[in-house]
Amino acid sequence: MRAVIMDAPGTVTVTDREDPQIVEPTDAVIRITAACICGSDLWPYRGAEEADHLLMGHEYVGVVEEVGAAVKTVKPGDFVVGSFVISCGECEICTAGFPGRCVHAEFVHGGIGTQAEKARIPYADGTLVATPGQPDADLIPSLLAASDVLGTGWYAAVTAEAGPGKTIAVVGDGAVGLMGVLAAQQLGAERIILSSRHADRQALGREFGATDIIEERGDAAVARIKELTNGLGAHGTIEAVGTQESMMQALRSTRPGGNLGFVGVQHDVAIPGDELFFSQVRVQGGPAPVRRFLPDLIQRIWDRKINPGRVFDLTLPLEQAAEGYRAMDQRTATKVLLTV
Amino acid sequence: MRAVIMDAPGTVTVTDREDPQIVEPTDAVIRITAACICGSDLWPYRGAEEADHLLMGHEYVGVVEEVGAAVKTVKPGDFVVGSFVISCGECEICTAGFPGRCVHAEFVHGGIGTQAEKARIPYADGTLVATPGQPDADLIPSLLAASDVLGTGWYAAVTAEAGPGKTIAVVGDGAVGLMGVLAAQQLGAERIILSSRHADRQALGREFGATDIIEERGDAAVARIKELTNGLGAHGTIEAVGTQESMMQALRSTRPGGNLGFVGVQHDVAIPGDELFFSQVRVQGGPAPVRRFLPDLIQRIWDRKINPGRVFDLTLPLEQAAEGYRAMDQRTATKVLLTV
Repeated sequence: MRAVIMDAPGTVTVTDREDPQIVEPTDAVIRITAACICGSDLWPYRGAEEADHLLMGHEYVGVVEEVGAAVKTVKPGDFVVGSFVISCGECEICTAGFPGRCVHAEFVHGGIGTQAEKARIPYADGTLVATPGQPDADLIPSLLAASDVLGTGWYAAVTAEAGPGKTIAVVGDGAVGLMGVLAAQQLGAERIILSSRHADRQALGREFGATDIIEERGDAAVARIKELTNGLGAHGTIEAVGTQESMMQALRSTRPGGNLGFVGVQHDVAIPGDELFFSQVRVQGGPAPVRRFLPDLIQRIWDRKINPGRVFDLTLPLEQAAEGYRAMDQRTATKVLLTV
Repeated sequence: MRAVIMDAPGTVTVTDREDPQIVEPTDAVIRITAACICGSDLWPYRGAEEADHLLMGHEYVGVVEEVGAAVKTVKPGDFVVGSFVISCGECEICTAGFPGRCVHAEFVHGGIGTQAEKARIPYADGTLVATPGQPDADLIPSLLAASDVLGTGWYAAVTAEAGPGKTIAVVGDGAVGLMGVLAAQQLGAERIILSSRHADRQALGREFGATDIIEERGDAAVARIKELTNGLGAHGTIEAVGTQESMMQALRSTRPGGNLGFVGVQHDVAIPGDELFFSQVRVQGGPAPVRRFLPDLIQRIWDRKINPGRVFDLTLPLEQAAEGYRAMDQRTATKVLLTV
């Protein structure tokens, strides 16, 4: 089969690999229908994380080809959406709602790779969810988004306690931030303030439910958000970048007793303990528990209540993956879908 | 009247000051019955915070002498317990349950001072709670504890989501940590693991509800707690020290998806963003919303369901305050009660 490999930072190739096989009775092998490139794929691409022949891709939808003897909830022929983290679904961490840190957790990125024609998915019951039937073609981008970027934005919005009467600030207008806007809107937030300087992302943000767009950054953004919230700050904030500046902006934008969901993978960030203390903001990050949200997200997509697939602004065949990485690196694309 | 002043780090005197008067219609003037010395008073005492003629004391119980025209819920003659932070009770932050960060918040410590014969308490309705009647003398230490140390431990336990079926780890065997144990027990925690190396504090911890005592510190403590919790870590953790080591011990002792309530005022602490992210622990600190808990805590004390006053192991008259500071600084006392 064909698969995307990151040989080294900045070097992405599409190459032949052996077809995956069932190894454990809890495995499934799926034929990938569509995959995509994640903002987090840019960390190794830019050399901020190691990249030595990484198997790329962790977002995926596809059709089950074969399952191990112990798999109960998906069967050959099912169209499935899977989480970007393998999870058993049965351990104490999974059952408490945090499958992204399952005791058997394994990142799909790196060792499995779904920017490929096929993939072996361990713990298929705990990782995959079948759609109600074969999806119409126009639903595929949205179902694919549920695999990580939507699920991650959703987690951030849930953690920020988005809901009726609440003002939610969103730091980061990348794909995850935009999905955070959509999630906050779906969860009933009254006001959604998006930080963005890009006209196209501002437009998409408004389409997803942003009520206010601010162009300030850092302390100026904090001051603007306070101005918009009686001097108090947002009830909840979504951080979707992962830098020191964005994290501090997010913390300072949130009122005392408010909630901050941070889903930008942190790079070189140190949070001053005294500021975290006196902020009295409740903070939680981590690999999103996408599997927890998948049944609900799939249903919302199936019912055409949400259209997160709008976040993809470039579609390429798998063979042209390198072009997709370049486009995201150079910010000519927000998010790239790869057809397989 | 007589009052305790910290002239400079390490120098505590009892001196004459003018009697406080009603200034605002929302004020009350109270005659202090008992006050105490807080672990946090040791930061300026030891020079880790500024101390230039500070009015000391922020925990207090007493009898209302006079109230301003706008005060509705307490009246002269009432016995009252007050929070260590002044709060209006009416702003959005107060009504959301975080009076420690009220928009009118003012620390009693520093500018008011309750290690004194009398004190003017602004926003009396939002800060003070009257007891059901005049208390028996033996209840005074426990009512006094509710003013901060119990309320702070309670907040940490609530934030750690102590409850039935939960394992709660407590880092810090000072007065706040011990109150955290008591709170976790009252909230129904199944297992309470206290880190302590002092026999007397271990004994008090057990009396308050600790089921396990561990003597390890740092990474060894983390390993021990994982050993006691199927390798997962505690469901919730209370941090009651405020150092880098204690904060990291607390974070690492908590399972993914668990909750960390940190109430040790942070000094020179920096939390690595990536570790906070991957921990997936929900973290919240801040000045405890004691006023939120006071009605419930007073009732539990009144009904003799809890005896947090046990945490005082030295009682001195106000005039001997300096001796009390020395005893706490040298750890010959856990917590000192000052009778007025």
